[in-house]
Amino acid sequence: MVEPVKGPLHGIRVIDLTRVLSGPFCTMILGDLGADVIKIEPPKGDPVRAQGTMSEGHSGYFAGFNRNKRSVVLDLYGDGGREVLRRLLSDADVLVENFRPGTLDKMGLDAETLKTLNPRLIVASVNGYGSEGPYIDRPAFDFIAQAMSGFMGVNGDADGAPMRAAPPVSDLVAGIYAALGIVAAIVSRQRTGLGQTVEVAMVNGLLSLMAYLSSEYFATGKVPERTGNDHPLVAPYGLFRCADGQIGVAPSHDQILRRFLDALDLGWVLSDPRYDSNTARMARRAELRELIEARMAGQPRDHWLRALNAAGVPCGVVQDLAQVFSDPQIAAQQMVIETGWQDGPAQKVLGFPIKLGATPCGLHRPVPRLGGGTQEVLAEAGYSAEEIARLAGSGAVLLP
Amino acid sequence: MVEPVKGPLHGIRVIDLTRVLSGPFCTMILGDLGADVIKIEPPKGDPVRAQGTMSEGHSGYFAGFNRNKRSVVLDLYGDGGREVLRRLLSDADVLVENFRPGTLDKMGLDAETLKTLNPRLIVASVNGYGSEGPYIDRPAFDFIAQAMSGFMGVNGDADGAPMRAAPPVSDLVAGIYAALGIVAAIVSRQRTGLGQTVEVAMVNGLLSLMAYLSSEYFATGKVPERTGNDHPLVAPYGLFRCADGQIGVAPSHDQILRRFLDALDLGWVLSDPRYDSNTARMARRAELRELIEARMAGQPRDHWLRALNAAGVPCGVVQDLAQVFSDPQIAAQQMVIETGWQDGPAQKVLGFPIKLGATPCGLHRPVPRLGGGTQEVLAEAGYSAEEIARLAGSGAVLLP
Repeated sequence: MVEPVKGPLHGIRVIDLTRVLSGPFCTMILGDLGADVIKIEPPKGDPVRAQGTMSEGHSGYFAGFNRNKRSVVLDLYGDGGREVLRRLLSDADVLVENFRPGTLDKMGLDAETLKTLNPRLIVASVNGYGSEGPYIDRPAFDFIAQAMSGFMGVNGDADGAPMRAAPPVSDLVAGIYAALGIVAAIVSRQRTGLGQTVEVAMVNGLLSLMAYLSSEYFATGKVPERTGNDHPLVAPYGLFRCADGQIGVAPSHDQILRRFLDALDLGWVLSDPRYDSNTARMARRAELRELIEARMAGQPRDHWLRALNAAGVPCGVVQDLAQVFSDPQIAAQQMVIETGWQDGPAQKVLGFPIKLGATPCGLHRPVPRLGGGTQEVLAEAGYSAEEIARLAGSGAVLLP
Repeated sequence: MVEPVKGPLHGIRVIDLTRVLSGPFCTMILGDLGADVIKIEPPKGDPVRAQGTMSEGHSGYFAGFNRNKRSVVLDLYGDGGREVLRRLLSDADVLVENFRPGTLDKMGLDAETLKTLNPRLIVASVNGYGSEGPYIDRPAFDFIAQAMSGFMGVNGDADGAPMRAAPPVSDLVAGIYAALGIVAAIVSRQRTGLGQTVEVAMVNGLLSLMAYLSSEYFATGKVPERTGNDHPLVAPYGLFRCADGQIGVAPSHDQILRRFLDALDLGWVLSDPRYDSNTARMARRAELRELIEARMAGQPRDHWLRALNAAGVPCGVVQDLAQVFSDPQIAAQQMVIETGWQDGPAQKVLGFPIKLGATPCGLHRPVPRLGGGTQEVLAEAGYSAEEIARLAGSGAVLLP
């Protein structure tokens, strides 16, 4: 299934030197938005091609991060491959890499060289700690960024250990921020005519989500503690037992709290001095939970989901992925779509979280096989069949 | 401290009807990137102005989401306030709202009306479930989106309960995606001359981070389970005890694993049939942890952080926010900055995760007091002093 409508980034060419997660997620989003993403891979390919469960020799893990790209295999350890890369960069719009800071310089692609080669080029880097400061030489990985950013310190049960988020949130949040920085640089370039550098560090990106926890720390000097599923500033809030399981209820302010308690015939609670302020309720969180669960235990989850949603109280159930992917709302939002591999089977992937009315995200290209775009992309760059054959013969490029 | 350099979105005007978190985070990012963000507030203001710990009557929580904005107070329940809003929209670039789907229509601002009013206007909505599907009328909240998206189902200890992430990740990820969708629509508009709708649902945004967990589910049909700090696909990985506490180590592939084990004089492990494949190591995760911790227990954390980083092994410590904000790397990255309130005190806020070389993010405007921009913005829109006074007298607008 190929989407006919052109995305908002149609006509933008991205040279993608990234591998594994943060960078490939960034460039996949750019590809979903219509950019022409050329994924430069080493002869062995992005290591993720061999990770996760393989189906007919294909990694769904790789597909989930690399649809809407063309794969070009270059040996960047040799001059031949590097010369091809320089030619591709000379008329590209964006270069994205997620090496450790300094690696691009070692490849002969320092900022000055790139500016001379193509002053309109936007040069984006996704890395662990940023390219300035004492940790620039440290290797990074999602789990480490979750630990160093303060995220793990607040995540988890009050009486438990610091807990990482299951998804690689620091990789993915950095990838989204990098895509945003790149598109903002494109807007800027339309005014200035010049490219610029864009950098997002995984630790900084995840720290930016520490939002109100940081504000509270700045205001009080107190280190926020782990509170599990309890909100540190609001009660009641969390998972509550019904006759057949738990539902989550999050009364975000007093008006919604009143609706919630009224729906449970507990309206009196708010005029009881023991519970008549959020401070008082925070102090008697457990008591309040007992009162609430005493009511909710009398009916199944579906009853409360209907009643509370109808009353305008945010509530829902904890869904596992099987339930998510059979949820009619997820289907209505087309959050599971099917693409294909360049060399074969159909492939389920997640849909597009950004819904644009006129120039929507779409499936513009299948998941590329290793080097599946080498011939085509080099020909577009003006290489003759003979030159391509010579480059392949010298090992500078690999043809599938 | 006001940043002199103009951001990449300089000249873009955003009319911001959002409140609480997801929308304000989106528009703050647009403001950080240089957009002129006009935050329309009801006479009582964004409820977050009264949330969190107050310092000298100011909420740091509000400041953390609303720097780089001007505040205009309009009564949108009355025709007078709505007429002012329409005039502001007629020459704006972007409208952002995070009401429940349909609310804008009820305010007389349906898609057709907005298109007639200003065909170049980009109309962005951040909501819980999206504007199509069976759940469109359900109220949403971060905790509920974490539950419904599948995130909580995989987050937490194997033997524990589903666990929310401590920060409001579904609000914030949706806010970043919305900012990206808006900037992409600006790029598209430079080609088409027309605005369009942009929509991001909190559940969809968070689901998009379920990345490889979804790929594994699609490939195997097995529901991914909670694995706490263990990686479901890789071992060894996680927190390991040293003489004076734990450090996180994440050997993301075999080469790094070899470096890790060599640094511990455990190189032999990889040629031992019990541990010579990731599958074998996954099956003997606990055993492997004992071997590793037996070595690491002999030295303090700093020793291993130095040794492993030097060996190119991603590692780090779990930092609490006090440690994060005294970390020299966080300082070098300027991830804590000081802005001010329009009506007073200095205010610490988080820095900018997107680093742009030529047109950086910056502090263009202080944190606005309620209605602190009403007079100025209405005057810019062509209202005379008399008209403004009349509007204030009628209660359509509120002057501070």
